[in-house]
Amino acid sequence: MSDRTAGTVYLIGAGPGAADLLTVRAARLLAEADSVFHDALVPADILALAPRAEKVAVGKRCGKHATAQAFINKRLVDAARKHRVVVRLKGGDPMLFGRAQEEIDALRAAGIRHEIVPGVTAALAAAADLGVSLTRRGVSRNVAFATPRVGEGERASDWAAALGHADTAAVYMGARDAAAITAALVARGKPASLPVVAVENASLPEARRWYTTLAELPRLAEEAFTGPVVLLLGEVFGDAVDEAQAVANSRQRRVRA
Amino acid sequence: MSDRTAGTVYLIGAGPGAADLLTVRAARLLAEADSVFHDALVPADILALAPRAEKVAVGKRCGKHATAQAFINKRLVDAARKHRVVVRLKGGDPMLFGRAQEEIDALRAAGIRHEIVPGVTAALAAAADLGVSLTRRGVSRNVAFATPRVGEGERASDWAAALGHADTAAVYMGARDAAAITAALVARGKPASLPVVAVENASLPEARRWYTTLAELPRLAEEAFTGPVVLLLGEVFGDAVDEAQAVANSRQRRVRA
Repeated sequence: MSDRTAGTVYLIGAGPGAADLLTVRAARLLAEADSVFHDALVPADILALAPRAEKVAVGKRCGKHATAQAFINKRLVDAARKHRVVVRLKGGDPMLFGRAQEEIDALRAAGIRHEIVPGVTAALAAAADLGVSLTRRGVSRNVAFATPRVGEGERASDWAAALGHADTAAVYMGARDAAAITAALVARGKPASLPVVAVENASLPEARRWYTTLAELPRLAEEAFTGPVVLLLGEVFGDAVDEAQAVANSRQRRVRA
Repeated sequence: MSDRTAGTVYLIGAGPGAADLLTVRAARLLAEADSVFHDALVPADILALAPRAEKVAVGKRCGKHATAQAFINKRLVDAARKHRVVVRLKGGDPMLFGRAQEEIDALRAAGIRHEIVPGVTAALAAAADLGVSLTRRGVSRNVAFATPRVGEGERASDWAAALGHADTAAVYMGARDAAAITAALVARGKPASLPVVAVENASLPEARRWYTTLAELPRLAEEAFTGPVVLLLGEVFGDAVDEAQAVANSRQRRVRA
Protein backbone atom coordinates (compact mmCIF):
# COMPACT_ATOMS: atom_id res chain seq x y z
CA MET A 1 0.00 0.00 0.00
CA SER A 2 1.77 3.15 -1.16
CA ASP A 3 1.11 6.57 0.39
CA ARG A 4 0.32 8.50 -2.81
CA THR A 5 0.19 11.89 -1.14
CA ALA A 6 3.73 11.52 0.22
CA GLY A 7 7.01 12.29 -1.52
CA THR A 8 9.84 9.93 -2.44
CA VAL A 9 12.85 9.07 -0.30
CA TYR A 10 16.06 8.55 -2.29
CA LEU A 11 18.75 6.53 -0.50
CA ILE A 12 21.84 7.80 -2.27
CA GLY A 13 25.45 6.71 -2.22
CA ALA A 14 27.62 9.80 -1.76
CA GLY A 15 30.68 7.96 -3.05
CA PRO A 16 34.15 7.96 -1.50
CA GLY A 17 34.41 11.69 -0.75
CA ALA A 18 35.28 13.72 -3.88
CA ALA A 19 32.18 15.66 -4.95
CA ASP A 20 32.69 14.82 -8.64
CA LEU A 21 32.64 11.10 -7.84
CA LEU A 22 28.94 11.37 -7.10
CA THR A 23 26.83 9.92 -9.90
CA VAL A 24 25.09 12.29 -12.27
CA ARG A 25 21.76 11.02 -10.91
CA ALA A 26 22.78 11.71 -7.31
CA ALA A 27 23.85 15.26 -8.17
CA ARG A 28 20.54 15.93 -9.95
CA LEU A 29 18.48 14.61 -7.02
CA LEU A 30 20.49 16.66 -4.52
CA ALA A 31 19.79 19.79 -6.58
CA GLU A 32 16.04 19.02 -6.36
CA ALA A 33 16.03 17.90 -2.73
CA ASP A 34 13.77 19.55 -0.15
CA SER A 35 15.40 17.70 2.72
CA VAL A 36 18.74 15.86 3.09
CA PHE A 37 19.55 13.48 5.95
CA HIS A 38 23.25 12.72 5.83
CA ASP A 39 25.95 10.71 7.59
CA ALA A 40 28.40 12.76 9.63
CA LEU A 41 31.28 11.99 7.25
CA VAL A 42 29.71 13.40 4.06
CA PRO A 43 31.89 16.38 3.00
CA ALA A 44 30.52 19.93 2.98
CA ASP A 45 31.04 20.44 -0.77
CA ILE A 46 28.73 17.50 -1.46
CA LEU A 47 26.05 18.94 0.83
CA ALA A 48 26.47 22.24 -1.04
CA LEU A 49 25.01 20.49 -4.11
CA ALA A 50 21.62 20.62 -2.32
CA PRO A 51 21.15 24.40 -1.94
CA ARG A 52 17.35 24.24 -1.46
CA ALA A 53 17.38 21.51 1.15
CA GLU A 54 17.20 21.53 4.91
CA LYS A 55 20.22 19.40 5.97
CA VAL A 56 20.12 17.08 8.95
CA ALA A 57 23.19 15.19 10.20
CA VAL A 58 22.11 11.77 11.46
CA GLY A 59 25.46 10.06 12.00
CA LYS A 60 25.28 7.65 14.88
CA ARG A 61 27.85 6.39 17.31
CA CYS A 62 28.56 2.79 18.22
CA GLY A 63 26.55 1.43 21.13
CA LYS A 64 23.39 3.48 20.63
CA HIS A 65 22.40 1.83 17.40
CA ALA A 66 18.82 0.69 17.91
CA THR A 67 17.35 3.91 19.32
CA ALA A 68 19.23 6.06 16.86
CA GLN A 69 18.08 3.95 13.91
CA ALA A 70 14.42 4.00 14.95
CA PHE A 71 14.63 7.78 15.24
CA ILE A 72 16.19 8.14 11.76
CA ASN A 73 13.52 5.85 10.27
CA LYS A 74 10.75 7.98 11.79
CA ARG A 75 12.28 11.22 10.59
CA LEU A 76 12.55 9.89 7.01
CA VAL A 77 8.89 8.87 6.99
CA ASP A 78 7.82 12.22 8.50
CA ALA A 79 9.90 14.15 5.95
CA ALA A 80 8.36 12.21 3.03
CA ARG A 81 4.88 13.17 4.27
CA LYS A 82 5.88 16.83 4.17
CA HIS A 83 8.23 17.07 1.15
CA ARG A 84 8.38 15.90 -2.46
CA VAL A 85 12.09 14.95 -2.64
CA VAL A 86 13.78 13.59 0.48
CA VAL A 87 17.39 12.40 0.22
CA ARG A 88 19.13 10.02 2.61
CA LEU A 89 22.81 10.44 1.79
CA LYS A 90 25.25 7.73 2.88
CA GLY A 91 29.02 7.56 2.41
CA GLY A 92 30.19 5.19 -0.35
CA ASP A 93 27.41 2.90 -1.57
CA PRO A 94 24.24 2.42 0.51
CA MET A 95 24.08 -1.37 -0.05
CA LEU A 96 27.65 -2.19 1.09
CA PHE A 97 28.22 -1.52 4.82
CA GLY A 98 25.68 1.32 4.53
CA ARG A 99 23.07 -0.06 6.96
CA ALA A 100 20.40 0.80 4.40
CA GLN A 101 18.17 -2.21 4.97
CA GLU A 102 16.55 -1.02 8.19
CA GLU A 103 15.62 2.28 6.56
CA ILE A 104 14.31 0.55 3.43
CA ASP A 105 12.19 -1.80 5.57
CA ALA A 106 10.78 1.13 7.56
CA LEU A 107 9.90 3.04 4.37
CA ARG A 108 8.20 -0.06 2.91
CA ALA A 109 6.23 -0.62 6.12
CA ALA A 110 5.05 3.00 6.05
CA GLY A 111 4.11 2.81 2.35
CA ILE A 112 6.59 5.53 1.37
CA ARG A 113 7.96 5.40 -2.18
CA HIS A 114 11.72 5.02 -2.19
CA GLU A 115 14.55 4.48 -4.65
CA ILE A 116 18.17 3.54 -4.13
CA VAL A 117 20.92 5.27 -6.09
CA PRO A 118 24.16 3.25 -6.01
CA GLY A 119 27.52 4.91 -5.48
CA VAL A 120 31.26 4.37 -5.84
CA THR A 121 32.45 2.37 -2.85
CA ALA A 122 35.64 3.39 -1.01
CA ALA A 123 37.78 0.36 -1.94
CA LEU A 124 37.30 1.02 -5.65
CA ALA A 125 38.25 4.68 -5.21
CA ALA A 126 41.32 3.57 -3.24
CA ALA A 127 42.33 1.13 -6.00
CA ALA A 128 41.93 3.95 -8.55
CA ASP A 129 44.10 6.28 -6.44
CA LEU A 130 46.79 3.59 -6.21
CA GLY A 131 46.65 2.56 -9.87
CA VAL A 132 46.40 -1.08 -8.79
CA SER A 133 43.53 -3.27 -9.93
CA LEU A 134 41.89 -5.45 -7.25
CA THR A 135 41.69 -8.26 -9.79
CA ARG A 136 44.54 -9.12 -12.11
CA ARG A 137 45.05 -11.87 -14.66
CA GLY A 138 47.00 -14.73 -13.09
CA VAL A 139 47.06 -13.19 -9.60
CA SER A 140 43.55 -12.42 -8.36
CA ARG A 141 40.12 -13.26 -9.70
CA ASN A 142 38.09 -12.50 -6.58
CA VAL A 143 37.79 -9.90 -3.86
CA ALA A 144 36.21 -10.06 -0.40
CA PHE A 145 34.79 -6.92 1.20
CA ALA A 146 34.45 -7.24 4.96
CA THR A 147 34.41 -5.39 8.23
CA PRO A 148 35.42 -6.72 11.65
CA ARG A 149 33.20 -4.11 13.33
CA VAL A 150 30.19 -5.75 14.92
CA GLY A 151 27.19 -3.64 15.89
CA GLU A 152 24.97 -3.92 18.96
CA GLY A 153 22.87 -7.10 18.90
CA GLU A 154 24.75 -8.50 15.93
CA ARG A 155 26.21 -12.00 15.74
CA ALA A 156 29.97 -12.12 15.17
CA SER A 157 30.05 -13.22 11.54
CA ASP A 158 33.17 -14.87 10.26
CA TRP A 159 34.87 -11.95 8.57
CA ALA A 160 38.24 -13.65 8.92
CA ALA A 161 37.12 -16.69 6.90
CA ALA A 162 35.79 -14.45 4.13
CA LEU A 163 39.02 -12.44 3.98
CA GLY A 164 41.24 -15.49 4.37
CA HIS A 165 39.80 -17.33 1.36
CA ALA A 166 39.82 -14.45 -1.10
CA ASP A 167 42.67 -13.53 -3.47
CA THR A 168 42.27 -9.83 -2.57
CA ALA A 169 40.68 -8.40 0.56
CA ALA A 170 39.21 -4.97 1.27
CA VAL A 171 38.56 -4.16 4.91
CA TYR A 172 36.22 -1.32 5.88
CA MET A 173 36.19 0.24 9.35
CA GLY A 174 39.09 -2.03 10.30
CA ALA A 175 41.78 0.42 11.45
CA ARG A 176 41.10 -0.14 15.15
CA ASP A 177 41.11 -3.93 14.67
CA ALA A 178 44.43 -4.16 12.81
CA ALA A 179 46.02 -6.51 15.36
CA ALA A 180 43.03 -8.87 15.22
CA ILE A 181 43.07 -8.81 11.41
CA THR A 182 46.75 -9.73 11.24
CA ALA A 183 46.38 -12.49 13.86
CA ALA A 184 43.30 -14.00 12.18
CA LEU A 185 44.72 -13.97 8.66
CA VAL A 186 48.11 -15.38 9.69
CA ALA A 187 46.23 -18.13 11.59
CA ARG A 188 44.39 -18.90 8.33
CA GLY A 189 47.60 -19.31 6.38
CA LYS A 190 48.16 -15.87 4.85
CA PRO A 191 51.91 -15.06 4.89
CA ALA A 192 53.21 -12.40 7.29
CA SER A 193 54.77 -10.81 4.19
CA LEU A 194 51.37 -10.36 2.49
CA PRO A 195 51.37 -6.91 0.82
CA VAL A 196 48.99 -4.42 2.43
CA VAL A 197 48.09 -0.89 1.38
CA ALA A 198 46.16 1.41 3.69
CA VAL A 199 44.37 4.36 2.09
CA GLU A 200 42.98 7.15 4.25
CA ASN A 201 40.48 9.62 2.78
CA ALA A 202 40.54 7.94 -0.66
CA SER A 203 39.74 10.34 -3.54
CA LEU A 204 40.19 13.50 -1.44
CA PRO A 205 43.09 15.99 -1.69
CA GLU A 206 44.14 15.03 1.86
CA ALA A 207 44.35 11.32 0.92
CA ARG A 208 47.28 9.42 2.47
CA ARG A 209 48.66 5.99 1.62
CA TRP A 210 50.87 3.51 3.44
CA TYR A 211 52.53 0.50 1.83
CA THR A 212 53.25 -2.29 4.29
CA THR A 213 52.84 -5.99 5.06
CA LEU A 214 50.41 -8.02 7.13
CA ALA A 215 53.03 -8.38 9.91
CA GLU A 216 53.69 -4.62 10.09
CA LEU A 217 50.04 -3.52 9.84
CA PRO A 218 49.23 -3.38 13.60
CA ARG A 219 52.16 -1.08 14.38
CA LEU A 220 51.31 1.17 11.44
CA ALA A 221 47.66 1.36 12.47
CA GLU A 222 48.60 2.40 15.98
CA GLU A 223 51.05 5.09 14.86
CA ALA A 224 49.65 6.57 11.69
CA PHE A 225 45.92 6.53 10.98
CA THR A 226 43.79 9.54 11.84
CA GLY A 227 40.89 9.48 9.32
CA PRO A 228 38.69 6.80 7.75
CA VAL A 229 40.90 4.08 6.28
CA VAL A 230 40.34 1.29 3.78
CA LEU A 231 42.77 -1.61 4.10
CA LEU A 232 43.62 -3.48 0.89
CA LEU A 233 45.43 -6.81 1.20
CA GLY A 234 46.73 -9.19 -1.44
CA GLU A 235 49.47 -10.22 -3.83
CA VAL A 236 48.15 -7.72 -6.42
CA PHE A 237 49.78 -5.02 -4.26
CA GLY A 238 53.19 -6.71 -4.26
CA ASP A 239 54.78 -4.47 -6.92
CA ALA A 240 53.39 -1.30 -5.32
CA VAL A 241 54.71 -2.25 -1.87
CA ASP A 242 58.13 -3.26 -3.30
CA GLU A 243 58.43 0.05 -5.20
CA ALA A 244 57.42 2.13 -2.18
CA GLN A 245 59.95 0.34 0.03
CA ALA A 246 62.71 0.73 -2.60
CA VAL A 247 62.04 4.48 -2.69
CA ALA A 248 62.09 4.66 1.13
CA ASN A 249 65.37 2.70 1.28
CA SER A 250 67.09 4.87 -1.32
CA ARG A 251 66.00 7.99 0.61
CA GLN A 252 67.54 6.56 3.78
CA ARG A 253 70.77 5.80 1.90
CA ARG A 254 70.89 9.37 0.62
CA VAL A 255 70.33 10.74 4.12
CA ARG A 256 73.17 8.57 5.48
CA ALA A 257 75.60 9.44 2.65
CA MET B 1 60.02 9.21 -17.11
CA SER B 2 56.85 10.98 -18.23
CA ASP B 3 56.22 11.98 -21.84
CA ARG B 4 55.40 15.67 -21.32
CA THR B 5 54.35 16.31 -24.88
CA ALA B 6 51.71 13.59 -24.76
CA GLY B 7 48.13 13.81 -23.48
CA THR B 8 46.51 11.95 -20.59
CA VAL B 9 44.71 8.63 -20.74
CA TYR B 10 41.72 8.36 -18.38
CA LEU B 11 40.64 4.81 -17.55
CA ILE B 12 37.03 5.39 -16.66
CA GLY B 13 34.35 3.18 -15.15
CA ALA B 14 31.20 3.52 -17.25
CA GLY B 15 29.06 2.14 -14.42
CA PRO B 16 26.36 -0.51 -14.71
CA GLY B 17 24.63 0.81 -17.83
CA ALA B 18 22.34 3.76 -17.08
CA ALA B 19 23.96 6.94 -18.42
CA ASP B 20 23.12 8.92 -15.27
CA LEU B 21 24.96 6.40 -13.12
CA LEU B 22 28.24 7.65 -14.57
CA THR B 23 30.12 9.82 -12.12
CA VAL B 24 30.10 13.58 -12.63
CA ARG B 25 33.86 13.40 -13.31
CA ALA B 26 33.42 10.70 -15.96
CA ALA B 27 30.73 12.73 -17.73
CA ARG B 28 32.94 15.83 -17.74
CA LEU B 29 35.94 13.95 -19.15
CA LEU B 30 33.80 12.33 -21.85
CA ALA B 31 32.60 15.79 -22.90
CA GLU B 32 36.25 16.87 -23.29
CA ALA B 33 37.53 13.66 -24.87
CA ASP B 34 39.30 13.67 -28.23
CA SER B 35 39.30 9.91 -28.44
CA VAL B 36 37.28 7.19 -26.67
CA PHE B 37 38.23 3.50 -26.66
CA HIS B 38 35.31 1.53 -25.26
CA ASP B 39 34.20 -1.99 -24.42
CA ALA B 40 31.59 -3.46 -26.73
CA LEU B 41 28.92 -3.43 -23.99
CA VAL B 42 29.00 0.33 -23.22
CA PRO B 43 25.55 1.71 -24.22
CA ALA B 44 25.17 4.22 -27.07
CA ASP B 45 23.72 6.97 -24.86
CA ILE B 46 26.89 6.92 -22.74
CA LEU B 47 29.06 7.22 -25.88
CA ALA B 48 26.85 10.14 -26.94
CA LEU B 49 28.24 12.07 -23.96
CA ALA B 50 31.52 12.35 -25.94
CA PRO B 51 30.34 14.29 -29.02
CA ARG B 52 33.82 15.52 -30.02
CA ALA B 53 35.55 12.16 -29.75
CA GLU B 54 36.49 9.56 -32.28
CA LYS B 55 35.02 6.33 -30.81
CA VAL B 56 36.75 2.99 -31.13
CA ALA B 57 35.17 -0.27 -29.94
CA VAL B 58 37.88 -2.53 -28.53
CA GLY B 59 35.82 -5.30 -26.96
CA LYS B 60 37.67 -8.56 -27.16
CA ARG B 61 36.50 -12.14 -27.36
CA CYS B 62 37.62 -15.01 -25.18
CA GLY B 63 40.57 -16.99 -26.55
CA LYS B 64 42.33 -14.12 -28.35
CA HIS B 65 43.25 -12.22 -25.22
CA ALA B 66 47.00 -11.64 -25.49
CA THR B 67 47.14 -10.30 -29.04
CA ALA B 68 44.06 -8.18 -28.59
CA GLN B 69 45.39 -6.67 -25.34
CA ALA B 70 48.79 -5.76 -26.83
CA PHE B 71 46.97 -4.07 -29.71
CA ILE B 72 44.72 -2.06 -27.35
CA ASN B 73 47.76 -1.02 -25.26
CA LYS B 74 49.56 0.24 -28.39
CA ARG B 75 46.52 2.15 -29.60
CA LEU B 76 46.13 3.91 -26.23
CA VAL B 77 49.78 5.00 -26.24
CA ASP B 78 49.56 6.17 -29.88
CA ALA B 79 46.35 8.11 -29.16
CA ALA B 80 47.94 9.87 -26.15
CA ARG B 81 50.82 11.03 -28.38
CA LYS B 82 48.28 12.60 -30.76
CA HIS B 83 45.50 13.88 -28.45
CA ARG B 84 45.12 15.79 -25.18
CA VAL B 85 42.29 13.77 -23.60
CA VAL B 86 42.05 10.05 -24.33
CA VAL B 87 39.39 8.01 -22.56
CA ARG B 88 39.42 4.25 -22.07
CA LEU B 89 35.85 3.43 -21.06
CA LYS B 90 35.14 0.14 -19.30
CA GLY B 91 31.82 -1.30 -18.07
CA GLY B 92 31.29 -1.07 -14.31
CA ASP B 93 34.47 -0.18 -12.43
CA PRO B 94 37.88 -0.54 -14.12
CA MET B 95 39.58 -2.08 -11.04
CA LEU B 96 37.07 -4.91 -10.45
CA PHE B 97 37.05 -7.48 -13.28
CA GLY B 98 37.93 -4.66 -15.68
CA ARG B 99 41.32 -5.98 -16.83
CA ALA B 100 42.75 -2.52 -16.32
CA GLN B 101 46.16 -3.54 -14.99
CA GLU B 102 47.72 -4.51 -18.30
CA GLU B 103 46.72 -1.18 -19.80
CA ILE B 104 47.99 0.75 -16.76
CA ASP B 105 51.31 -1.12 -16.92
CA ALA B 106 51.67 -0.37 -20.65
CA LEU B 107 50.94 3.35 -20.09
CA ARG B 108 53.47 3.52 -17.25
CA ALA B 109 56.11 1.76 -19.37
CA ALA B 110 55.54 4.25 -22.17
CA GLY B 111 55.65 7.24 -19.79
CA ILE B 112 52.08 8.31 -20.59
CA ARG B 113 50.21 10.19 -17.87
CA HIS B 114 47.09 8.33 -16.81
CA GLU B 115 44.34 8.57 -14.23
CA ILE B 116 41.72 6.09 -13.12
CA VAL B 117 38.14 7.20 -12.51
CA PRO B 118 36.23 4.63 -10.43
CA GLY B 119 32.67 3.66 -11.28
CA VAL B 120 29.57 1.98 -9.87
CA THR B 121 30.03 -1.77 -10.14
CA ALA B 122 27.19 -3.97 -11.44
CA ALA B 123 26.47 -5.85 -8.18
CA LEU B 124 25.82 -2.61 -6.31
CA ALA B 125 23.47 -1.40 -9.04
CA ALA B 126 21.69 -4.77 -8.91
CA ALA B 127 21.31 -4.51 -5.12
CA ALA B 128 19.89 -1.01 -5.56
CA ASP B 129 17.40 -2.25 -8.18
CA LEU B 130 16.28 -5.03 -5.83
CA GLY B 131 16.12 -2.87 -2.70
CA VAL B 132 18.16 -5.48 -0.83
CA SER B 133 21.40 -4.56 0.91
CA LEU B 134 24.34 -6.94 0.37
CA THR B 135 25.23 -6.50 4.03
CA ARG B 136 22.66 -6.56 6.78
CA ARG B 137 22.88 -6.39 10.55
CA GLY B 138 22.78 -9.92 11.99
CA VAL B 139 22.77 -11.64 8.58
CA SER B 140 25.75 -10.58 6.48
CA ARG B 141 28.84 -8.55 7.25
CA ASN B 142 30.93 -9.48 4.23
CA VAL B 143 30.60 -9.94 0.46
CA ALA B 144 32.77 -11.82 -2.01
CA PHE B 145 32.95 -10.67 -5.63
CA ALA B 146 34.18 -13.41 -7.96
CA THR B 147 34.06 -14.76 -11.46
CA PRO B 148 34.47 -18.38 -12.52
CA ARG B 149 35.60 -17.22 -16.02
CA VAL B 150 39.26 -17.94 -16.53
CA GLY B 151 41.14 -16.17 -19.31
CA GLU B 152 43.82 -17.52 -21.61
CA GLY B 153 47.05 -18.23 -19.73
CA GLU B 154 45.40 -17.69 -16.36
CA ARG B 155 45.63 -20.07 -13.43
CA ALA B 156 42.30 -21.37 -12.14
CA SER B 157 42.00 -19.38 -8.92
CA ASP B 158 39.76 -20.72 -6.22
CA TRP B 159 36.63 -18.70 -6.86
CA ALA B 160 34.52 -21.36 -5.14
CA ALA B 161 36.44 -21.01 -1.86
CA ALA B 162 36.03 -17.23 -1.91
CA LEU B 163 32.28 -17.49 -2.60
CA GLY B 164 31.79 -20.38 -0.18
CA HIS B 165 33.23 -18.54 2.81
CA ALA B 166 31.42 -15.24 2.37
CA ASP B 167 28.04 -14.31 3.86
CA THR B 168 26.93 -12.80 0.53
CA ALA B 169 28.34 -13.59 -2.91
CA ALA B 170 28.25 -11.63 -6.17
CA VAL B 171 29.22 -13.55 -9.29
CA TYR B 172 30.19 -11.70 -12.46
CA MET B 173 30.24 -13.37 -15.89
CA GLY B 174 28.94 -16.53 -14.27
CA ALA B 175 25.75 -17.26 -16.23
CA ARG B 176 27.35 -19.93 -18.41
CA ASP B 177 28.91 -21.60 -15.37
CA ALA B 178 25.75 -21.85 -13.27
CA ALA B 179 25.93 -25.64 -12.93
CA ALA B 180 29.56 -25.48 -11.77
CA ILE B 181 28.70 -22.71 -9.28
CA THR B 182 25.87 -24.71 -7.74
CA ALA B 183 27.95 -27.90 -7.55
CA ALA B 184 30.96 -26.13 -6.01
CA LEU B 185 28.97 -24.20 -3.40
CA VAL B 186 26.86 -27.20 -2.35
CA ALA B 187 30.11 -29.19 -2.01
CA ARG B 188 31.38 -26.44 0.30
CA GLY B 189 28.35 -26.69 2.54
CA LYS B 190 26.03 -23.98 1.20
CA PRO B 191 22.41 -25.24 1.38
CA ALA B 192 20.60 -26.14 -1.87
CA SER B 193 17.89 -23.75 -0.63
CA LEU B 194 20.28 -20.76 -0.53
CA PRO B 195 18.41 -17.72 -1.91
CA VAL B 196 19.71 -16.50 -5.29
CA VAL B 197 18.71 -13.48 -7.33
CA ALA B 198 19.87 -13.06 -10.91
CA VAL B 199 19.79 -9.55 -12.35
CA GLU B 200 20.20 -9.01 -16.08
CA ASN B 201 21.01 -5.52 -17.41
CA ALA B 202 20.96 -3.97 -13.94
CA SER B 203 20.01 -0.25 -13.93
CA LEU B 204 18.66 -0.28 -17.50
CA PRO B 205 14.98 -0.06 -18.50
CA GLU B 206 15.22 -3.60 -19.94
CA ALA B 207 16.49 -5.00 -16.60
CA ARG B 208 15.10 -8.42 -15.65
CA ARG B 209 15.24 -10.24 -12.31
CA TRP B 210 14.79 -13.85 -11.27
CA TYR B 211 14.33 -15.05 -7.69
CA THR B 212 15.44 -18.61 -7.16
CA THR B 213 17.60 -20.95 -5.09
CA LEU B 214 21.06 -22.45 -5.50
CA ALA B 215 19.51 -25.80 -6.52
CA GLU B 216 17.31 -24.24 -9.21
CA LEU B 217 19.94 -21.84 -10.61
CA PRO B 218 21.37 -24.13 -13.36
CA ARG B 219 17.96 -24.76 -14.92
CA LEU B 220 17.10 -21.06 -14.79
CA ALA B 221 20.42 -20.09 -16.38
CA GLU B 222 19.84 -22.48 -19.23
CA GLU B 223 16.28 -21.34 -19.92
CA ALA B 224 16.18 -17.64 -19.18
CA PHE B 225 19.31 -15.50 -19.45
CA THR B 226 20.01 -13.56 -22.65
CA GLY B 227 22.06 -10.51 -21.55
CA PRO B 228 24.83 -9.82 -19.03
CA VAL B 229 23.82 -11.19 -15.64
CA VAL B 230 25.02 -10.63 -12.10
CA LEU B 231 24.24 -13.47 -9.71
CA LEU B 232 23.67 -12.52 -6.07
CA LEU B 233 23.62 -15.32 -3.49
CA GLY B 234 23.00 -15.25 0.24
CA GLU B 235 20.56 -15.29 3.13
CA VAL B 236 20.07 -11.51 2.76
CA PHE B 237 17.90 -12.34 -0.28
CA GLY B 238 15.67 -14.76 1.66
CA ASP B 239 12.73 -12.36 2.13
CA ALA B 240 12.88 -11.20 -1.50
CA VAL B 241 12.88 -14.79 -2.83
CA ASP B 242 10.04 -15.81 -0.45
CA GLU B 243 7.92 -12.83 -1.51
CA ALA B 244 8.52 -13.43 -5.22
CA GLN B 245 7.55 -17.10 -4.85
CA ALA B 246 4.44 -16.22 -2.81
CA VAL B 247 3.34 -13.86 -5.61
CA ALA B 248 4.00 -16.54 -8.24
CA ASN B 249 2.03 -19.14 -6.25
CA SER B 250 -0.96 -16.86 -5.72
CA ARG B 251 -1.00 -16.12 -9.48
CA GLN B 252 -1.04 -19.85 -10.20
CA ARG B 253 -3.92 -20.32 -7.75
CA ARG B 254 -5.89 -17.55 -9.46
CA VAL B 255 -5.30 -19.13 -12.88
CA ARG B 256 -6.50 -22.52 -11.57
CA ALA B 257 -9.61 -21.08 -9.85
